[in-house]
Amino acid sequence: MGNIFGKIFTVTTFGESHGKAVGCVIDGCPPMIELSEADIQVDLNRRRPGQSEISTQRNESDTCKILSGVYEGKTLGTPICILVENKDQHSFDYDEIATLWRPSHADFTYDAKFGIRDPRGGGRSSARETIGRVAAGAVAKKMLKGIKITAWVESLNLISMPAPTTTPTHDEIEQTSVRCPHKPTAEKMIEFIKKARSEGDSVGGVIRCRIEGLPAGLGNPVFDRFEAELAKAMLSLPATKGFEIGSGFAGTRMLGSRHNDIFVLDENGNLTTKTNNAGGVLGGITSSRPVDFRVAFKPTATIAKEQPTVSKKLEPTTVIGKGRHDPCVLPRAVSLVEAMSALVVADFTMRQRTIKEV
Amino acid sequence: MGNIFGKIFTVTTFGESHGKAVGCVIDGCPPMIELSEADIQVDLNRRRPGQSEISTQRNESDTCKILSGVYEGKTLGTPICILVENKDQHSFDYDEIATLWRPSHADFTYDAKFGIRDPRGGGRSSARETIGRVAAGAVAKKMLKGIKITAWVESLNLISMPAPTTTPTHDEIEQTSVRCPHKPTAEKMIEFIKKARSEGDSVGGVIRCRIEGLPAGLGNPVFDRFEAELAKAMLSLPATKGFEIGSGFAGTRMLGSRHNDIFVLDENGNLTTKTNNAGGVLGGITSSRPVDFRVAFKPTATIAKEQPTVSKKLEPTTVIGKGRHDPCVLPRAVSLVEAMSALVVADFTMRQRTIKEV
Amino acid sequence: MGNIFGKIFTVTTFGESHGKAVGCVIDGCPPMIELSEADIQVDLNRRRPGQSEISTQRNESDTCKILSGVYEGKTLGTPICILVENKDQHSFDYDEIATLWRPSHADFTYDAKFGIRDPRGGGRSSARETIGRVAAGAVAKKMLKGIKITAWVESLNLISMPAPTTTPTHDEIEQTSVRCPHKPTAEKMIEFIKKARSEGDSVGGVIRCRIEGLPAGLGNPVFDRFEAELAKAMLSLPATKGFEIGSGFAGTRMLGSRHNDIFVLDENGNLTTKTNNAGGVLGGITSSRPVDFRVAFKPTATIAKEQPTVSKKLEPTTVIGKGRHDPCVLPRAVSLVEAMSALVVADFTMRQRTIKEV
Amino acid sequence: MGNIFGKIFTVTTFGESHGKAVGCVIDGCPPMIELSEADIQVDLNRRRPGQSEISTQRNESDTCKILSGVYEGKTLGTPICILVENKDQHSFDYDEIATLWRPSHADFTYDAKFGIRDPRGGGRSSARETIGRVAAGAVAKKMLKGIKITAWVESLNLISMPAPTTTPTHDEIEQTSVRCPHKPTAEKMIEFIKKARSEGDSVGGVIRCRIEGLPAGLGNPVFDRFEAELAKAMLSLPATKGFEIGSGFAGTRMLGSRHNDIFVLDENGNLTTKTNNAGGVLGGITSSRPVDFRVAFKPTATIAKEQPTVSKKLEPTTVIGKGRHDPCVLPRAVSLVEAMSALVVADFTMRQRTIKEV
Repeated sequence: MGNIFGKIFTVTTFGESHGKAVGCVIDGCPPMIELSEADIQVDLNRRRPGQSEISTQRNESDTCKILSGVYEGKTLGTPICILVENKDQHSFDYDEIATLWRPSHADFTYDAKFGIRDPRGGGRSSARETIGRVAAGAVAKKMLKGIKITAWVESLNLISMPAPTTTPTHDEIEQTSVRCPHKPTAEKMIEFIKKARSEGDSVGGVIRCRIEGLPAGLGNPVFDRFEAELAKAMLSLPATKGFEIGSGFAGTRMLGSRHNDIFVLDENGNLTTKTNNAGGVLGGITSSRPVDFRVAFKPTATIAKEQPTVSKKLEPTTVIGKGRHDPCVLPRAVSLVEAMSALVVADFTMRQRTIKEV
Repeated sequence: MGNIFGKIFTVTTFGESHGKAVGCVIDGCPPMIELSEADIQVDLNRRRPGQSEISTQRNESDTCKILSGVYEGKTLGTPICILVENKDQHSFDYDEIATLWRPSHADFTYDAKFGIRDPRGGGRSSARETIGRVAAGAVAKKMLKGIKITAWVESLNLISMPAPTTTPTHDEIEQTSVRCPHKPTAEKMIEFIKKARSEGDSVGGVIRCRIEGLPAGLGNPVFDRFEAELAKAMLSLPATKGFEIGSGFAGTRMLGSRHNDIFVLDENGNLTTKTNNAGGVLGGITSSRPVDFRVAFKPTATIAKEQPTVSKKLEPTTVIGKGRHDPCVLPRAVSLVEAMSALVVADFTMRQRTIKEV
Repeated sequence: MGNIFGKIFTVTTFGESHGKAVGCVIDGCPPMIELSEADIQVDLNRRRPGQSEISTQRNESDTCKILSGVYEGKTLGTPICILVENKDQHSFDYDEIATLWRPSHADFTYDAKFGIRDPRGGGRSSARETIGRVAAGAVAKKMLKGIKITAWVESLNLISMPAPTTTPTHDEIEQTSVRCPHKPTAEKMIEFIKKARSEGDSVGGVIRCRIEGLPAGLGNPVFDRFEAELAKAMLSLPATKGFEIGSGFAGTRMLGSRHNDIFVLDENGNLTTKTNNAGGVLGGITSSRPVDFRVAFKPTATIAKEQPTVSKKLEPTTVIGKGRHDPCVLPRAVSLVEAMSALVVADFTMRQRTIKEV
Repeated sequence: MGNIFGKIFTVTTFGESHGKAVGCVIDGCPPMIELSEADIQVDLNRRRPGQSEISTQRNESDTCKILSGVYEGKTLGTPICILVENKDQHSFDYDEIATLWRPSHADFTYDAKFGIRDPRGGGRSSARETIGRVAAGAVAKKMLKGIKITAWVESLNLISMPAPTTTPTHDEIEQTSVRCPHKPTAEKMIEFIKKARSEGDSVGGVIRCRIEGLPAGLGNPVFDRFEAELAKAMLSLPATKGFEIGSGFAGTRMLGSRHNDIFVLDENGNLTTKTNNAGGVLGGITSSRPVDFRVAFKPTATIAKEQPTVSKKLEPTTVIGKGRHDPCVLPRAVSLVEAMSALVVADFTMRQRTIKEV
């Protein structure tokens, strides 16, 4: 039913926005990895609502508990269940939603698919589902030594940061609430979000991510290419509408002679390429160059403006977003992009081990 | 190892470019579907090399044989093995490739991953692998009654066709060798490809695809969203660098109030939306609006220009594309995009049946 | 890592014996099924320790909570997480176990596999893991209308009940603590267990199970035969050593002319067979005759007698079972056999729907 | 649809008895393993019909071709397709079968499941399907260095060989056509089969198998226990009705104090056990002791005696086995038991590699 991700390092998430709890079960995490609730909490805090003036005011502490799979601070190789209880629920906000379909939300399609939905806070289609992903991603990162995953907000609406010459640092990204590492651009973005919110509107944008330190050889040719699983991982995130790797759509406007990445030896005699239009993958397999990709996020569907819509009885009506919501999901989605990247890398790392001689 | 696609309607492809054969096995095709080799050959012919002046001169008839799973013209519900023998192989063209890594090809990464590769014609990384996909896609289409999948070349390098007001017809697409339904644009594209080829260069572009006639309710929330599996399917195709659905990357530059697709009733009282920025999916589930997406293809890596590269002994050398190859993969890739779309739809159609009451 | 069961109706169990909790997540349960915690508790109570004089004195109420996937008493089609907290844990009983390997327990093999284990109460290898299975089985039963699954203790050590002419009723089975429906035999069994326990020993036996009301057509030929998945399901239960269906091992001593089940029409003109040596399956597919199978359970490995063994430092030592344990697992295992049967049937039921025309 | 076996080392078989071909595709075989058609042919020849006076007279050479995945005598890590064409087909033998359901065959259940079947030679339910399994098993064996898999016929009807003190050698097993290594017993078995055949009857029996040389640590606790996957593998073979490991059903009649396998150190100071009632597995994980199991095969359903049955129009009729068939499948099934064992071991070997540090 689509709630399990990965072939070896598998993650199942569960939970509705206003149910008792959300969380995940990881099956396939190797044993003997040091893991504590604090390791997970760090990432959950970056995802958490109510962090700043530009995010939703829903205030959940999102404190996680590890229920299984860890003993004396180390993973056992058995399933790791991580739970976050739902606390700050205002179900009364959502009564109306049960009777109509909000524009660009999943209300209608859940009804069409299942014949039933939990209307409180979007139920399973709420972004609270991603708590389980972030928790699992934090576990994946613990097993991925020497691999650095860095995501940041590259553009919001028409505001874009200049192309960075190196991967931004974590501190540069975290210095502003919008998680764009170029401060002048970040300030414009924050102003833009505030203005949109004051007008009851919402904002989309692009998150860029780089995965560094990967060995050559990850990813499986044909259907399970590294970039194919990455694309699936990203398009499985709420509000995403596009994915591109390396030169992406811009690369379609280059000639082959310019697009090809020429192999050369670096100063240490190691193989590298002059350019990285490939974005770190060739034939679906990592080349050891940084994996470099972008994800497009649409503007939040919930807006504080009245919009026409249709009720479940197929009668015209109107709706206005009353719940607490983010005018722009991107700052919080940075942690989601990183988490899903970590899950993809962890799974491919374990899959690659299978073909090494014992 | 990544050669199986789908959860219920599963396809395994096999075969190297210059091995004895390529093909596929479909496990999960329902019984009682009319199927003949001719049904499959139609699509294989659209994928086939040597079709026109702008594609590779490798001349394979690519005649398929159904080895199993069909009896008296109907599927049995048992595995369907479809085989295409390799015939027009010029292995002598490829001897040099065994000793070096071509730029932007998978030679290096196959070596890194497997420690071995078949250098003849690219081996498993050759586009001949996609024969199995097209054959399986043809079978999937036979079970998908009332669903129309239409792909076409929307742009090549900087040449773009005007936005169509309706989905192009199959005849409009097939009228030119470049498979762009807007004839004046198609002519420019053909000229551009010819010019690039004469200069030993190659060309990239964008394929657009629309899936019409889907019921609401396909696709599984969370990890196996309709658009997530579609993105994976597309990024699993050789030479792809990006995917976007609905408003895609352009949608990130819109405000929510404009991006939201307002639900309305059409003249027959059926639910529809004013716009389709969503591209036919909400919360990972089809809404019954057309699924509308784009796929970015990079320029062909093989070019007839000398390029510097590095040998397997890490010594600098040069390489020039001598094999027969396409200066632009997009015209032939139209059938691949359609085939992978059909596989995604077939699989989700069968998955959705599981939750209907018997 | 082996903690997920099923292809469509999938169950993941998690939890160690003395960790915070045990439970399961079900992904793939259809929507709109009525489900409450009470539905699940009934089966958990049959599995629960401390029920009677012949089971372990560990006293857990094993009260379950549904954390997700149910809204207003109906399943949503989203993952159902069911949790049981661990309460009556005597960890001090188990300190010694960390340093040695108990005979016929999984201590040694967990160490060999994972390099780490939770020694408290057997950790993940404890029978407490089966709580998640029973909970999931209870959910599966709710979706299986008209299907009756009945398991009972057929033999204990050398004590066997006479062959029943009809399937025993639930009341007949539950009337004695040993869950053998033939009361005189049950009394002998109880005496035998008590005697074994008083001598610090343990007892094995055979559970028989019948699944009635199945339609013809469930089960997938070749690898996923109905009986193959059933055998896997049963051999995945702790302490099991054998599985047979229909005539089983005894059938190997019959000639074909006697073993074949002759098709006839019953008084209503419906197809049936004179005998059921097949045990309800032909070619891996259910025939609509009762599925009839047996499962062999070894005597409990934990005994209250001193046994020689070897420490983790490879030094000879001795061990004596001090924890609370069952002298015979079969009475409680009846609910496990039923639960695993329900999971197999639920999964095949949903798989079969995929090949029906929508 | 159940034609794929394994999680990492996956095998898909395809083909009907009287279709164009049967075969398999292996996805997940590691690269760099030496493999030739001759390696596979050896095992196919042991499975082949027409080998001896006690098997079917259908005379197929069953010559295999490797179509993909091997280059210069070594596996590539890409899918290996192995094909065997069907040649000696007497379809006219089978016309009648299309209109009725043979006792204890899969005709009825295939009709019930699929609504269609290929009646020629049993179609997909024919034992010819197992050619793909034996071919895949031969490949698995090539990657399993140091592991010995030995199966033999232990009993036929009431004729049992004495318990061997050591594992029989391959030569001892192959010295008689019945593949029982105890020659006096073998001779009785051959006589018994001949007599049964002369009377138009058929014979069942038990195959025993030992897997030696396994490291400790294979198999995944909970659902994918080593013995659970083995049981599934064996019960997926045609004509099987039971599986037991180690002490099996006989072990249920022992007390725990006698059943427990006491850990001791052998003369070299290595850990072993005094007895092996466990059959080489503890908690679902291999202990490094030999895996020792039995499989029950029913007497062949096809017999040369007239039997009453029912037509597809639900009218009483009779049927007599006219096709060429084995009066006893066990001698040929020895190779099937070994092949499926090899697939289980190969898959678990690769799965175990995932949790080792790279």
